[in-house]
Amino acid sequence: MAGKQNDKRKAVKSGKQREKREKDAEPAKDAKDAKPGKTGKSGKREKAPEQEKAAEPGKRSKDDGAGARPLRELLRVTPGERPDLGRLDPSATPGGPTGKAAGAAATALLAQPLGSLQERLYAASTAGDRRRVLLVLQGMDTSGKGGTLKHVIGLFNPSGCRIKAFKAPTAEELSHPFLWRIKQELPRPGEIGIFDRSHYEDVLIARVRELVPRNRVRARYAQINRFEKALADDGVTVVKVFLHIGYEEQRARLLERLDNPDKHWKFNVGDIEERSVWPAYQEAYEVALERCSTDAAPWYVVPADRKWYRNWAITTLLREHLEDIDPRYPKGDFDVEECRRRLLAG
Amino acid sequence: MAGKQNDKRKAVKSGKQREKREKDAEPAKDAKDAKPGKTGKSGKREKAPEQEKAAEPGKRSKDDGAGARPLRELLRVTPGERPDLGRLDPSATPGGPTGKAAGAAATALLAQPLGSLQERLYAASTAGDRRRVLLVLQGMDTSGKGGTLKHVIGLFNPSGCRIKAFKAPTAEELSHPFLWRIKQELPRPGEIGIFDRSHYEDVLIARVRELVPRNRVRARYAQINRFEKALADDGVTVVKVFLHIGYEEQRARLLERLDNPDKHWKFNVGDIEERSVWPAYQEAYEVALERCSTDAAPWYVVPADRKWYRNWAITTLLREHLEDIDPRYPKGDFDVEECRRRLLAG
Repeated sequence: MAGKQNDKRKAVKSGKQREKREKDAEPAKDAKDAKPGKTGKSGKREKAPEQEKAAEPGKRSKDDGAGARPLRELLRVTPGERPDLGRLDPSATPGGPTGKAAGAAATALLAQPLGSLQERLYAASTAGDRRRVLLVLQGMDTSGKGGTLKHVIGLFNPSGCRIKAFKAPTAEELSHPFLWRIKQELPRPGEIGIFDRSHYEDVLIARVRELVPRNRVRARYAQINRFEKALADDGVTVVKVFLHIGYEEQRARLLERLDNPDKHWKFNVGDIEERSVWPAYQEAYEVALERCSTDAAPWYVVPADRKWYRNWAITTLLREHLEDIDPRYPKGDFDVEECRRRLLAG
Repeated sequence: MAGKQNDKRKAVKSGKQREKREKDAEPAKDAKDAKPGKTGKSGKREKAPEQEKAAEPGKRSKDDGAGARPLRELLRVTPGERPDLGRLDPSATPGGPTGKAAGAAATALLAQPLGSLQERLYAASTAGDRRRVLLVLQGMDTSGKGGTLKHVIGLFNPSGCRIKAFKAPTAEELSHPFLWRIKQELPRPGEIGIFDRSHYEDVLIARVRELVPRNRVRARYAQINRFEKALADDGVTVVKVFLHIGYEEQRARLLERLDNPDKHWKFNVGDIEERSVWPAYQEAYEVALERCSTDAAPWYVVPADRKWYRNWAITTLLREHLEDIDPRYPKGDFDVEECRRRLLAG
């Protein structure tokens, strides 16, 4: 993996140069227009064959990203199969609209159906329906977890969302089993919960930085699978998204933060340290995706170099899952005519 | 107060009739166009003299609701002064845009500056700034607390918002002092906290329904003032909004819920009970507004019969307070050049 990364370290641009590129690229050139085997000026890598197939124009009827196949089939990690992240192009746009402008428009159009689905989910919970959604966001620094919260979760009614950002565990949290702090932050029935980082940190940074012995990390995959299966059995639709960003794109985003003093607060010197063990993180992700993508709680790999695609894809994944839940407004348990009469009388 | 309500009970419409009226009324006819002393077809009451003055066209330069005086001066309850809610027109639009379409447009335009202010507030907290905002929403059933969360708080980045809806206290909560459960839900530094109902229920329903002896209620006003003063001293900007809805408008909104089976889940037979003691609630609100509008934590009365005005007004109040806080991006505490060099090298 280290070698794969090394050959990408040549096309380095400063954040400022890149900012200009991004503006010039509107609407962004899609991965499906790129020639296989060619690395574009922007340092984007060629796409992996399976994504080529997914984005095949003939498969799509219009430019709203509403492909013939559900997006979750395109992006899902097959249980037990180890994804080769080095071969999955982080700038690809499988199943997505043709560019930035179309992507943003398609995402905006999803706000209405999402809002309606969310309201029905919440309404159903008032009559005892325990179903809810848990979106788990994982990815390297700058991969867009915060941007997803702002642009995707921002489309929902905030009163039905429960967001939790997991930081490095506190002393108290460390004194408990690793799932203890997670269990306190689960969405309640009718809610959409969002984890910005999660229990997966306990098999990612914990593995890479050897925070616990390797055999304890190994035991955690099965613990996680049991935990998530229990959630699913209790009515939680678990949607796990790995934001797949490229090594070069991360460099560009970090440089952008350095170039802009208003973004210095987002910059963490520790991010450079983590970046220095990039291949180890990619491997840790591959193992987690392989072992913990289950029928009860699948993993989705969302190419995240293009922010508009990331937003569209996660919004679409949530829509597909909510449509699958198909929540219904509950019937009232009161006498409508009697209530109307009382209201008109008083 | 009961007499004042009674003379309004004639112009009753069913929810369906009303729905049509609302659509026909786009853009909504403003209170400032209404003739004083005349009650319009829609059952809206004449406006109070002080709001007439506030909404005087000559005082406003353009139709974005950006009046010469800050909105918080127009809507603020003067400390120690008892507002006469019966004389404050719930359909008035003091300082606001001229109608529904202009109001919605003006509110949408506030999303960008609000987002920027919120980001700076959050950024400042990462460098130790303890400042934050607490929006307290109170009002009768259907007054629009939920709509405010959706349409006003929905403009913010959800990851910086902490929303808490206070329901009837649990047995455990009742075993503690009334402020105990409130203190657990306060916004953290950098956040915008929103209370959908609050500790004020303990001087509202508690007073009207005599849930505790009157002398205990009486003691609570001072306890609340001390509590809120301590919050203000700790960097919390407390913005308390009373959503002032009319008795007729509440009837119309409740009927609307009855008319639409998809809204039955929002309907609560208990709401009819609470409505039957409307004058007692108005009085309890007047007392709370009088005794607890302080320099440290003022109350604002937002006329709430017109949803577009309510949204615009609360958005504007938040903007004014955030501008007053004037949060700044913190300076980074790292060597920018050194970081850039390391990033470009690796």
